[in-house]
Amino acid sequence: MFKCNLIDHLFIFIAVYCDKIIMGRRSSMKIEKPLQLLEPMNVPPRLLMGPGPSNMRDDIQESTCKSLLGHLHPEFTKIMDDVREGIKYLFQTNNKLTFAVSGTGHAGMECAMVNLLEKGSKFLVVQNGLWGSRAASLAKRMGIDVKVLEIENGKAAKIDEFSEAVKSYRPDVVFICHGESSTGVVHPLEGFSKVCHDNNALLLVDTVASIGGTPFNANELEVDCVYSATQKVLNAPPGLAPISFSDRAVEYIKNRKTPVASFYFDALELGNYWGCYGEQRRYHHTGMISMVYALRTALTDIVKEGIEESVTRHQENAKILYSKLNEIGLEPFVDDKSIRLPCLTTVKVPENVAWQEVIGCMMGKGIEIAGGLGATAGKIWRIGTFGQNSNPQTIEKVTKNLKMCLENK
Amino acid sequence: MFKCNLIDHLFIFIAVYCDKIIMGRRSSMKIEKPLQLLEPMNVPPRLLMGPGPSNMRDDIQESTCKSLLGHLHPEFTKIMDDVREGIKYLFQTNNKLTFAVSGTGHAGMECAMVNLLEKGSKFLVVQNGLWGSRAASLAKRMGIDVKVLEIENGKAAKIDEFSEAVKSYRPDVVFICHGESSTGVVHPLEGFSKVCHDNNALLLVDTVASIGGTPFNANELEVDCVYSATQKVLNAPPGLAPISFSDRAVEYIKNRKTPVASFYFDALELGNYWGCYGEQRRYHHTGMISMVYALRTALTDIVKEGIEESVTRHQENAKILYSKLNEIGLEPFVDDKSIRLPCLTTVKVPENVAWQEVIGCMMGKGIEIAGGLGATAGKIWRIGTFGQNSNPQTIEKVTKNLKMCLENK
Repeated sequence: MFKCNLIDHLFIFIAVYCDKIIMGRRSSMKIEKPLQLLEPMNVPPRLLMGPGPSNMRDDIQESTCKSLLGHLHPEFTKIMDDVREGIKYLFQTNNKLTFAVSGTGHAGMECAMVNLLEKGSKFLVVQNGLWGSRAASLAKRMGIDVKVLEIENGKAAKIDEFSEAVKSYRPDVVFICHGESSTGVVHPLEGFSKVCHDNNALLLVDTVASIGGTPFNANELEVDCVYSATQKVLNAPPGLAPISFSDRAVEYIKNRKTPVASFYFDALELGNYWGCYGEQRRYHHTGMISMVYALRTALTDIVKEGIEESVTRHQENAKILYSKLNEIGLEPFVDDKSIRLPCLTTVKVPENVAWQEVIGCMMGKGIEIAGGLGATAGKIWRIGTFGQNSNPQTIEKVTKNLKMCLENK
Repeated sequence: MFKCNLIDHLFIFIAVYCDKIIMGRRSSMKIEKPLQLLEPMNVPPRLLMGPGPSNMRDDIQESTCKSLLGHLHPEFTKIMDDVREGIKYLFQTNNKLTFAVSGTGHAGMECAMVNLLEKGSKFLVVQNGLWGSRAASLAKRMGIDVKVLEIENGKAAKIDEFSEAVKSYRPDVVFICHGESSTGVVHPLEGFSKVCHDNNALLLVDTVASIGGTPFNANELEVDCVYSATQKVLNAPPGLAPISFSDRAVEYIKNRKTPVASFYFDALELGNYWGCYGEQRRYHHTGMISMVYALRTALTDIVKEGIEESVTRHQENAKILYSKLNEIGLEPFVDDKSIRLPCLTTVKVPENVAWQEVIGCMMGKGIEIAGGLGATAGKIWRIGTFGQNSNPQTIEKVTKNLKMCLENK
């Protein structure tokens, strides 16, 4: 009896133990429901006066959640056609190969570089802030020979030093950031493409932070590739990178020795999907339907206002912002007025002021302004006046609150 | 007098001509407003029963156009944390390096491959439809040594032939598409990672068309990298690619000889931005705010229903769909019931039926179904029952209309 019981207990023990092992293994294999997803999503209202994203206009916000169409339905390809023509207007170009990359601003940079550069290419980067350094570091990852023309933060390259750098290095492609959002500088471009073309190089320009807020005409400037993003002056959500390649750039791509190392960013394939050459569209990838709706609406708003009028408005409101900032004792970071980016204003953090506390104080009032980025971190604040946020009332609100935050420190 | 007049006329002629030249040049430089953007955007309602995008659920649609937050605001990084945990639940994995790529499904593939492969890597692709061929062609672009294990369309690789291919080729990375949307096959995965790991290879799996609709447990299957997309079972708009790397894959990436050739797709950098290792987040790129909102809501819906319940529902409704299709005389393309993809059903186009006309007839009724893709083009129709569209009422509606379209032919 006792013996029997012992054996019974042993069996029960083994059974329970085995079950625990099995269950333990099972439970480590099975992932339980993450209960935090059952809590409501918290999206407080914010006045976005940093370097982007900016606040959506109401019409853009509304269009973002329209019901979906298929990525090759005729109604959707019609919307893509509209977007393509809107981007041509935005960049002021007749370039056939004009479309939007399905990715944020940095995807625009990668798309440009992966198409224009290949093993053996020489790449000259004008670096006067973070974006040049980002382009140079991406080229190094790609195994491309890179030369950096380093310019002091807050300044721009002079045409003479640029010309000298091009003539001595003989690059295939040159990178200039038009709107350097880490410093608040708009880089002059007049004459730069001539230097490039005279020396058999292509000019690639980043206008992520500048397009629509400062004059830019890809036709007149003879830029070979230009890309931007949707979440700055355009006031659309981040998600697409408008891009355009000149015929010269297209020829260059067609004559590459090696295939483009990416399919997602292959410009000629994307051009086909976007109907740039009018042929039958081939499936490439599933377009970002909702983001394309938003961009279409944002481009409509630009067309309604007029690109020149948009630029003028940003320039005029930037003057108001500088004057208000001056009133509260803040000095511009960029000395040379002629190269100040009108849609992103940078001011020096005064001595003995804790820059992060001021940003926190502003955020407590529901207003985002930003600190520096890269080399300017801790030295400056950055105030974005992109699209609809470029107006005297909003500027008044921001500077009034900034004054209070500075006085409290 | 006459002489004077002649000279006057000459001057006027020159002046007018010069002006025309200048104006002509100006007008070719200046791009006029594209007036089509002033017309309203036409987005007709569609029942999306193709291979994706699928229709958004109402809650997802609503969340897509919530107001924007900054991409590093604490409220937004909290949402990113939720999304990360939701993706772990979706893939059934504890992998720390789990996040969403800012791009559509194909961006997931590029992200996986650009991190796991480098010059000198050997890549084995199981190819039983378009997605294997896409992965192989991308690898070739990247200059990677590729071997294709070709499997007939509509079939899956047998473990023995797979094992033989791995042992003879000795790949570093193996690609299998779990849900082959060009044929409607779900590829069995049991035992495949063991073959890979026994032979020192990593297993990369594409679940774009399968996740949430057929059983998948990355933990149990010991998959080293898995990616998916938002616009299929998840019912969110296309825009993000959920992805997860095993610790083994992370070690492999850390031991690469060359840097990852992309910054946008650099998994370790992205993991930092997504807070995968709990450190202070660094700015990487401007996250796709609206798309992250949508994905968060879609993952909440999956958590509410339960991943296993979602899979069972897709399986049961697929049976209903096959039975209804059988009633109207259509035969399944995939013979072997055990490898039919429950959320994307493929049927043969009957002889003497103009497949495109049937698709057009359905579209005329506001319902999208799709033709084949790649090798199956013209041979099959594809009917997607993704997420909320996997229900008996919708299936009834689709097959009833399909019957009418077939009878009219």
